[in-house]
Amino acid sequence: MNGPAGTLLLSEIREQPAVLERLAAQTEVFEQVAAEARRRNTRIVRMVGHGSSDNAASYGVYAFGLLPGWTALRDSISLSVYYGAEVDLADSCVLGLSQSGRTPDVVDYVERAARRGAYTIALTNNPDSPLAEASDAVLPLHAGEERAIAATKTYTATVATLGLLAAYAAAQGPAYADGLRRTAELLDGLLPDLEPALTAVATQLAFVGRMLVVGRGPEFATARELSLKLLETCRVAAEPLTATDLAHGPVAALDSLFPVWAIASDDESLPTVVEAVARARAAGATVIASGSAAGSLPGVLTTIPVPQAPLPLLGPLLSIAPGQLLAWALAQAKGLDPDHPAGLAKVTLVP
Amino acid sequence: MNGPAGTLLLSEIREQPAVLERLAAQTEVFEQVAAEARRRNTRIVRMVGHGSSDNAASYGVYAFGLLPGWTALRDSISLSVYYGAEVDLADSCVLGLSQSGRTPDVVDYVERAARRGAYTIALTNNPDSPLAEASDAVLPLHAGEERAIAATKTYTATVATLGLLAAYAAAQGPAYADGLRRTAELLDGLLPDLEPALTAVATQLAFVGRMLVVGRGPEFATARELSLKLLETCRVAAEPLTATDLAHGPVAALDSLFPVWAIASDDESLPTVVEAVARARAAGATVIASGSAAGSLPGVLTTIPVPQAPLPLLGPLLSIAPGQLLAWALAQAKGLDPDHPAGLAKVTLVP
Repeated sequence: MNGPAGTLLLSEIREQPAVLERLAAQTEVFEQVAAEARRRNTRIVRMVGHGSSDNAASYGVYAFGLLPGWTALRDSISLSVYYGAEVDLADSCVLGLSQSGRTPDVVDYVERAARRGAYTIALTNNPDSPLAEASDAVLPLHAGEERAIAATKTYTATVATLGLLAAYAAAQGPAYADGLRRTAELLDGLLPDLEPALTAVATQLAFVGRMLVVGRGPEFATARELSLKLLETCRVAAEPLTATDLAHGPVAALDSLFPVWAIASDDESLPTVVEAVARARAAGATVIASGSAAGSLPGVLTTIPVPQAPLPLLGPLLSIAPGQLLAWALAQAKGLDPDHPAGLAKVTLVP
Repeated sequence: MNGPAGTLLLSEIREQPAVLERLAAQTEVFEQVAAEARRRNTRIVRMVGHGSSDNAASYGVYAFGLLPGWTALRDSISLSVYYGAEVDLADSCVLGLSQSGRTPDVVDYVERAARRGAYTIALTNNPDSPLAEASDAVLPLHAGEERAIAATKTYTATVATLGLLAAYAAAQGPAYADGLRRTAELLDGLLPDLEPALTAVATQLAFVGRMLVVGRGPEFATARELSLKLLETCRVAAEPLTATDLAHGPVAALDSLFPVWAIASDDESLPTVVEAVARARAAGATVIASGSAAGSLPGVLTTIPVPQAPLPLLGPLLSIAPGQLLAWALAQAKGLDPDHPAGLAKVTLVP
């Protein structure tokens, strides 16, 4: 498996359709865990994780809000772990998100929450990990060993797992699982075309040191994850923003040397993305657009369309693919090794 | 009042001690609003705002979590306003944060929440605004007209207002209000020393195009606000991170051209900030440190200490001051007008 730089990352990007299909076939565990969450009168879902796991949690805010109508939040870990705040957890379901299952402060948070009566669920790629051990239930990511430092298949697996749990909690599980299977097929057809497309985009961006990445709604998770990939593999200072927040300050920093990447899906927040792109163009910034509605944005330099997902909530599983492949291609264009970013280890054991 | 570039911003930075003193004297309204929030069995505080208001909300997460033990979240505006999610708001208190009281999607969110039974409170500098009109109660910021585009005194006023409300909800109002008065005095003594100190720091940073800003706990709000000031007034791509998140990816982007600003207060999360600084130094990054515990960080190039606040939760009102003055001084060092960043209006009327 060890080939030229980027071999690991690319092979794991390519594994994603198979990972999503495996998850779509594991419906029984989602049914059981969702039933238990409902039995306990869950109204609040507290998600804790770092890095790509935390980015996936941004998707969870929308999945739980739109499907069962539960309030889902990326909870503050430090509030309970470092400051000892005593918040009522009576109707809370806690989701610990960690690929390795070994992130110390996530495990610590979950242990505290379990002692205080929350229903705790581990979303992890390692069902034998301390996080799984500490939790009432485990939702395995079924992603297989992830060897590249930068997460790709475990990010999409976490997104899909959050979506499946939310859908089963809303008694819409089979429809989501079926959509997930079809999304996996679409992704499988999409990746071979995207690889050369993003290699070409990477040559455009080889000298870019900073970027704003705009997305809204469920695609804000995509904006965050794309930014993190660029930061960790390509040393690009990429900042994720909701389409609306761009207008509240950051637009002042734009110029022709500061490109904006816009993620546009064909949903209710598309008008805010269109507006943000118009503001960015007015400030002289170059805009690159991806997503199922990329073609509807005005004045864009480069468009990377992806197919419409079977359900709007499944869009982020397709729209992250250009970002993952950009990280892979741009790192190489910059002479960096996308598989082994300097200074990073696969499992981060500092709290 | 119109003088050389930066006159407006500097005069508003200097007004902050007086603004905080005015707020500390308005205890009756906080007592009433907090009593009503308790009468309605508030357990969840949903904060909505953009830009500096949203940064202040990061402080609210800690103020409400640590004082009354309520779950406070920066709620998704798009989830209800654009996607129409129907989340149960029975025990929710909604705080609409807007200096102008005219931010369209914040007003829209609050109107929807009011119709669905939430207790709605406007935190605004304009008690005659649409936001105030739409809300059950108003907590005026008492900051006086803010003329500079970049928010300074309304940011600290929003932070203090959130803290006062949380403290009164926890029956600890008078202690917080008293601490706030003493904090205002400390700030008044601090600012004259900081102005020349930050002018010197700005010359160090005149050629910096990007920066990571690290803070944790209540100081994460400070990290976010400092980053936004640099982005909007100085065109620096500054990215806020919790101390822990630095290790989960972004540390790979660091080198000697990519400085890290660390905000260190002497509280329970200080060890994670110390660890983050050590990681940044190991990656070759230059570190600048501010906050009451700035002196305890290893290997720092420049230290900008601020006094210890009377209560730990009041620290952010002092530790943002170096960031505000850096924005003022660095914009001038770069030949930019800190009062009127290109492309920004004071009131952002796009949703």
